[in-house]
Amino acid sequence: MNELTIKPIAYIRTDFSQKFGIPRQSGRVESLRAKIVFLPEYRNREALRGIEGFSHLWLIFDFSLSHREDWSPTVRPPRLGGNTRVGVFATRSPFRPNPIGLSCVELIGKENDKENGDVLIVGGADLVDMTPIFDIKPYLPYSDSKPEARSGFAEEINHSLRVVFDEDFLSCIPEEKRQPLIDCLADDPRPSYQDDRERIYTMSFAGFDVSFKVDNDVLTVVGIERV
Amino acid sequence: MNELTIKPIAYIRTDFSQKFGIPRQSGRVESLRAKIVFLPEYRNREALRGIEGFSHLWLIFDFSLSHREDWSPTVRPPRLGGNTRVGVFATRSPFRPNPIGLSCVELIGKENDKENGDVLIVGGADLVDMTPIFDIKPYLPYSDSKPEARSGFAEEINHSLRVVFDEDFLSCIPEEKRQPLIDCLADDPRPSYQDDRERIYTMSFAGFDVSFKVDNDVLTVVGIERV
Repeated sequence: MNELTIKPIAYIRTDFSQKFGIPRQSGRVESLRAKIVFLPEYRNREALRGIEGFSHLWLIFDFSLSHREDWSPTVRPPRLGGNTRVGVFATRSPFRPNPIGLSCVELIGKENDKENGDVLIVGGADLVDMTPIFDIKPYLPYSDSKPEARSGFAEEINHSLRVVFDEDFLSCIPEEKRQPLIDCLADDPRPSYQDDRERIYTMSFAGFDVSFKVDNDVLTVVGIERV
Repeated sequence: MNELTIKPIAYIRTDFSQKFGIPRQSGRVESLRAKIVFLPEYRNREALRGIEGFSHLWLIFDFSLSHREDWSPTVRPPRLGGNTRVGVFATRSPFRPNPIGLSCVELIGKENDKENGDVLIVGGADLVDMTPIFDIKPYLPYSDSKPEARSGFAEEINHSLRVVFDEDFLSCIPEEKRQPLIDCLADDPRPSYQDDRERIYTMSFAGFDVSFKVDNDVLTVVGIERV
């Protein structure tokens, strides 16, 4: 069995410069927008011919912040409280023998950008800014969609927080970034084992540091600073 | 942007020793059974802990029969008749910049096999026998299932053939392989641009060469030979 060396074909521009605050899975925050920029060698209009016919795409990407020399057979998923060990192949953890991620994004459109040629605008991406992408595949509902699938311990968590903002805070953020930010906050970025109402968390989003506290089901933004 | 070298963690044992006859996508022939065998370095019971909670898995694998030095921006999908060019990122073609495949399979169960340790039995796999697997991830319906997704030109084809067998032919095939073989044949293995009722096709399945002809919607098996 041979190794395979794979090369990035593109990278993604998202509003997340760090891991903290990224939605737990793709598609959870549909209002997020990201841009896929092809590397010069793969910047070829023909390679995208027909892609607009698809509403969703798969991204196969590099968990570039999670490279390790070694691998661990088990991981402790944050959503299980951080103490329960689960087999790595039963999770979507970035810490796995081959640090490859898989996310489904909505294809919003194709744009032509003077600097980068044809780029793809996608919705719902859960990737760190500048993540290298190895492959883009169309989503085929007749083979990829399994609404009846059982997902074991990883059942969806659907509680969302009420987000309270001071108007002044909101106004310093570009208008098109406001709703995605609110949606990310409402999805509760905290690890599920933390519930300290005094603690101030800071997530970075779209070039801002956004600080907040959470008390019960209310998240209050306590500061926003341009980085 | 750096290259990444990935190592097989496992390989799959399927009934397909060649590409011809493999269903066009995973899940099309649900009765197929395959076995995932871990390589010694990854043969660790703990790495599978909790996997039985999931009904479906993603396999990320090596399109090992489709390695090429170069890549082509367009491909000609067999289902479009073989003459229409489509951008490679708008298809699931194995001929792509990074020859990585993505398939969703049903998890039938985990077995312990004296020779190989814990193995996974999966249903519906569309992989050539001995395909190297780089990653196994659980299928999460809340982020992976998009029943409403549009799939452009790649709409599902649902015509199936009536399969006519001589009883003698059928009896030389092990009983548990009969239904999967019939289901693969009913799914019409021919490239969609071929419609020659005199032509004899041969697909290899489970160690047999199965020869057939197709006239309209009837597929007739004309010979089965043990290889």
